[in-house]
This record gives sequence, structure tokens and C-alpha cells, in this order.
Amino acid sequence: MNEKMKELGTRRSAIRELFEYGKKRKAEIGDANVYDFSIGNPSVPAPAIVRETLVNLLEKTDPVALHGYTSAQGDAGVRRAIAEYLNRTYNAGADPDLLYLTVGAAASLTISLTALLNPGDEVVLLAPFFPEYRVFAERTGAKVVTVPADPETFQPDLDALQKAITDKTRVLLVNSPNNPTGAVLSEKTVTRIAAILREREAAYGNPIWLIADEPYRELVWGNVKVPYLTNYYDRTIVCYSFSKSLSLPGERIGYLLVSPKAKEAADVYAAVCGAGRALGFVCAPSLFQYLIPACLGATSDLSVYAENRKMLCDALTGYGFRVISPDGAFYLFVQSPEPDANAFCERAKGMELLLVPSDSFGCPGFVRISYCVSTDMIRRSLAPFEKLAASYGLDRNQKGR
Amino acid sequence: MNEKMKELGTRRSAIRELFEYGKKRKAEIGDANVYDFSIGNPSVPAPAIVRETLVNLLEKTDPVALHGYTSAQGDAGVRRAIAEYLNRTYNAGADPDLLYLTVGAAASLTISLTALLNPGDEVVLLAPFFPEYRVFAERTGAKVVTVPADPETFQPDLDALQKAITDKTRVLLVNSPNNPTGAVLSEKTVTRIAAILREREAAYGNPIWLIADEPYRELVWGNVKVPYLTNYYDRTIVCYSFSKSLSLPGERIGYLLVSPKAKEAADVYAAVCGAGRALGFVCAPSLFQYLIPACLGATSDLSVYAENRKMLCDALTGYGFRVISPDGAFYLFVQSPEPDANAFCERAKGMELLLVPSDSFGCPGFVRISYCVSTDMIRRSLAPFEKLAASYGLDRNQKGR
Repeated sequence: MNEKMKELGTRRSAIRELFEYGKKRKAEIGDANVYDFSIGNPSVPAPAIVRETLVNLLEKTDPVALHGYTSAQGDAGVRRAIAEYLNRTYNAGADPDLLYLTVGAAASLTISLTALLNPGDEVVLLAPFFPEYRVFAERTGAKVVTVPADPETFQPDLDALQKAITDKTRVLLVNSPNNPTGAVLSEKTVTRIAAILREREAAYGNPIWLIADEPYRELVWGNVKVPYLTNYYDRTIVCYSFSKSLSLPGERIGYLLVSPKAKEAADVYAAVCGAGRALGFVCAPSLFQYLIPACLGATSDLSVYAENRKMLCDALTGYGFRVISPDGAFYLFVQSPEPDANAFCERAKGMELLLVPSDSFGCPGFVRISYCVSTDMIRRSLAPFEKLAASYGLDRNQKGR
Repeated sequence: MNEKMKELGTRRSAIRELFEYGKKRKAEIGDANVYDFSIGNPSVPAPAIVRETLVNLLEKTDPVALHGYTSAQGDAGVRRAIAEYLNRTYNAGADPDLLYLTVGAAASLTISLTALLNPGDEVVLLAPFFPEYRVFAERTGAKVVTVPADPETFQPDLDALQKAITDKTRVLLVNSPNNPTGAVLSEKTVTRIAAILREREAAYGNPIWLIADEPYRELVWGNVKVPYLTNYYDRTIVCYSFSKSLSLPGERIGYLLVSPKAKEAADVYAAVCGAGRALGFVCAPSLFQYLIPACLGATSDLSVYAENRKMLCDALTGYGFRVISPDGAFYLFVQSPEPDANAFCERAKGMELLLVPSDSFGCPGFVRISYCVSTDMIRRSLAPFEKLAASYGLDRNQKGR
């Protein structure tokens, strides 16, 4: 047996562990009595066009065609529709023949990393980061190097990034809007990151790939813009999932695109096809592939998350918590009132508040609060949050940041 | 970049290569003029209960619940329903907590192999075998050892199997009904295989796992029985997919089950969960998970394949081809009239007959003919097949075996 896999299966991610605990706890004391902020499972229903299109496909399409194998990289018409949408919307320079449909962003990432990496290579992650990045990268035999964020702005520390890149670095994996902080990489930051990568490539004579994990692209608040990275750096792979924008996380449908501007695009795309094959993906679920063209540009009602964000930010700040104000995604990153965020989460759990400690995100001392939950649950959770703050003697009058 | 992945993506499997060629060729000369026997893509529509259940789920279930993440191992109710069905039908001894839903049989296999294997371990395959087994096993760093079949019966050569097992063997992967021959492992053969494994385990002091890949379990012709392997050998993992039985190959829904009789069942199941996580599977598509309980025991109209099988067997035998008479699955394994099956396939291609050469199945000199196609296409393909036989001067009066 593979002991590493056994360990990964025994010690589940902190997020999944809490999600499973939440399920059990709800069965014990009732759904309404548990405030489950553990997982990024969208609470807003998929837009009506999802159900309409799926029912229509089921009722009007030959089932043999509808449920049959597609090409491994995905149906050609669906890939064309996605590429056209990306080019129209972001001037992405997408080529349908360099686009590969996947069973969601996790698969987009494992396939990209398996395509690019060899044992001993290095992958740079900007902390805080989604903990599974480490699992995905290390499974290829690569080593993970983390770069801390600026502790005030939670933007990446670019000097530290430049120093973290070695002659073994093959990938920089970024995530904007960020899970867990909600931070968005500004155009200025992206431009500087691209310049650093180019400069380091030249210094070492090795190509460095930028992998952009973008499941939260559409979830931004206010006038924030999310730069499309193929426009800033040539060796880019964009990983996308419809999980969050269309509220379809369980259906596993997403894609990756290799930027045609990269000199090695065709070879890397071949390696992507090889990795998808070797990992056992075969093709993305066909019904959900055929759903996509009708839904490009559609989203769930994201205003619910905007309302949740405001309610929770205002309340927690008012109770004296330090909240990192998020520009996007549906997470709040909140400083633990005691140095050990795990102890803080245990105390919160005693009040039925399920918060994820930040240690596995590569940035200890914080908690992640997923606010993609019902607004009603947030409203009802405020009293326990207030009690939690009071138990630490937090200053209600302190201005949160 | 990973050169091995690039190679796997550049040199696609012979099956996929031909499938893609077929698509292009049909676009050039019309669907009706290409006789595409390349891929195991069921041609019989999914049974009506599939559409009814899917539409019903879409119209009556809360979309947040329907499309949300399930537990990584699959929805608990769905796992319970599958385990109950397996126990009722095969006395399988299945435990829902040792059952793991997957995106189809390929994923069941890559997850099982990743859970069990370490670099340097050996996996034994019984030739002829589905070529992707080699890709899946080698990706873990393990070495593949193949055991030839008896060239007359296409049953495994059990003496050769016994000799092939070394102190490094960790897995024997079997496939019954078999792709590409259609052969089914009889109860007697399974009993002998189990005895060999137990004897070799005792000799080397190492556990050996039996992985049973069973996507064709329901596709058997006549009174053939497919033994359920957990009843014969304790260290068994059964890999299953609904692709073939329900004609849903593009939807990617299947499962694996670890036999509770295995001493290390809990640890291996943990490794399965770890492998699913590390490979990026997250969960099987949720809509298709919820479809399954209503469809257990249902199948597409398999009589179409039985009719196809008879028509094609009779005709090809009549033209003088040697056909290995299949007990199950929807493939004919036919001896090439010249030693090089690739040359034979090229000649067939010239008559628009797309047949897969057997080299990558670990058994050169044959072709695989997928007869999960329309009966009408088979009828129309007979004239070209007759012409192909005539071009080799085959004896029309020879009795096929």
C-alpha cells in the first residue's frame, strides 16, 4: 500500500474534516443549530438557464450522442464556444485546440501540474493558498516553496517572490480572487509578477510557467477588475471551473487553457492530454459539457454573496475582530484573537461556529469563514460570534481593518 | 515539461487515434460511408429510466443540494443503495463505508493503483488487456508484468501466472468479461487464481491485491455466469462503471469497492480516499450519483449487442476469418490474416473498416472489433468485410473457431 496516500486519506484536509464534522453535528442537534462556515459550497441556486438547458438537452437530444464519449480534450463545439467567449470577454487569445475540458478546477490543476513537473522540480505558491495545492504539487514529486504575503495588505511580497525562484522553479501557481483571503491581484501586481518571471527565466535559462487558478473570477465586489493573465505573461495556463459561478460544485465541470502565445504551447498541450489520460480522466461529463455553451457569461445571483459579505464584515469588525477586507471570492479571512487559530476554532466549535484554521493555508493565526451560506444562517450566527468575541474580551469599539 | 506525459499525449492510444481518425473521415465522406468499429461507445440508448430520473431530479430537487459537493467518497445514501444491491445480487459482502464513487472505471483503476502501489512494485496483467492498464500502472512508478493467454481458449495461462508473481508483485489486475476478447473468467479459473495468489502470498510473506475491472459485468451472452470476486479472494477491489450497462460512457460515473474481508480493508480504503484527493477527483458528478439508486439492475437493451454479435461472428467466420467466440462484453477478437495486424488494419482502413490492431493489448496478430454499433452499420459493413477476406484469399468454406 502507498503510505503517503493512506496518510492523505486518514488525515483529511482541515476543510473536509470540518465539513464532515458539520454533517454529523447537524444530524445530532439539527441543521438550524450549526453555523457551518467550513466549505466553499455555493448556497445560491444555479441560474434558471442551467435547469432549462439540462432538461432541454435530455428531452431533445439523442441519448447516445448526449451521454457518449467525447474527445478526451472535450467536445470540439463546446471548446470553440468557450474560446470565443473568452476572446470576446477578456481578449484572452484562447485557441479551442489548446483548451481542455476537465472535471473541475482540481482536475485542471492536477493535470497541468502533472504535465509540467518532474520529481525534484519546484513549485512556488503565494501564501495564503488553498491547501490542496500542496497535495497536488507534491504528488508529482515536486517540492513546494511558499512566499509569504504582506501581513497588512495580503498582497504577495514580490521581493520575496523574486528570491524564492531558483533554477529548479518550473511553476508559479497563483489564485485570484484568492481562497482564503478574497484578495485580487491588481494589474500592477500582475505586471510586476510577469516581469519577475521573465527576468528569472532569463537569469536561469529555464522556462517558468504561470498557472492561474480562477474559479472565483466572476465573484468580485465593487469595481474590482481581475486581469486575464494570458495578456501579461506568455507561458500561462488558466485553470477554470464553473463550480462557483454557476453553483455546480458537485458536477465537476471546468477547463484549462494553454496560452497560444507560449512558445511551447503545442508540446505542453500534448503533455496535458497525456496527463489527463494517465490520471484516468477520459473526458469531462458529457451532459455538463453540452450545458456550457448556453451558460457562458451567466452566473448565479451573486448579490446574495455581496450582501452576506457586508453583513458579516460589518458585524465581525464591530465585535472587535480583525477582518481582511476581501475584494472577491466568498471567504473572509479573520485574524485569530489568540496566536493559535486551532484553539480559537475549537472554542468557536463549542458555540457551533465552524471556522477553518489557516495553518494549512500556509499562514497561521487566521481563520477562513466561507460566507457562501444562507443569509439567514449568517444573521442567526451573529449572536454566537458576538459571544465568541466577548469570550476573548475583544474591544467592541475597535475599528476593524 | 514532463516528457513522458508529452509522449502519452502525442502518441494517443491506438483506440483513441482511430476514433479521432473516424470522426475526421466521417466529416470527409459522410457518416454512412465509414464503418467505425474503433471504440467501446455504446450504441444502444440509455434505458428510459435514466432520462426520467434525471428530469425528475432536475425538476423536483433543490438545485443547491442536487449540484452541491458530496462527500469525497460519494453521497452516503447512494453508497448504501449500491452496497445493498451488490449484496442482494451477488452476495458481495459490500460495505457502504468501503465503497467509493468515481468518475468511471478509469478513475476507479487509477485511484486503486495509486492507493496500492509504490515505485518499483510489480503489477501483473493477463494478456490481452485494455492498453490503458499499462499507462495507469506505470504512472505510479510500478512495473508491468504480462502473462500470455492460452492461444486457443484465450483463458489465462495459470502456470505462467504463478511464475510471473515475484516478491515485488502487489497487484493482479483482471478484467472479466474481457476487453478485447470477450472471454469470461469461469468459477473454476477464479478459484485457481485465488489459490495461486494465496500460495504466492504465503511464499513471499507479502499481500497481493486482486483488482477486478468489471465494466462489462452485465454484458454476457447465453448462460455465462461472471463470478463476483470478493467471494473467492479476500484482498479484492472491484472497479465498476455504469458506462456500458446504462450507456453513459461520457458521463463518467462508477465506483470501486474494497472487500471488507481483506484484513487491511480500512487502511486501503483510507489510501483510496487519499489517492482520489491527490489526483484531483474531489467527488463523482453529483447529478449522476443521485441517478444511480433508481437504475441499479437496469440496463440498456442488451439484445441489440447479442444480435450484432451473432451477425458479425457468423459472417466473419463464413468469410474465413478466425474469430475468438466471445462470452461477454461487446468486442470480437479476430486473428489477422497476415502476421502484422497493423498492416491488416491499414488494408481494412482502405475499405473504410476501422479495426483496432491488438499490439497494444499485449497480444499481437489480432484485431479488436467493437460491435456496440448500429446493427444497420454492421449489415452494411459485411460486403467490405467479405471483400477484405477475399483480398487475402481466405477460404470461405473454412470453419471458424
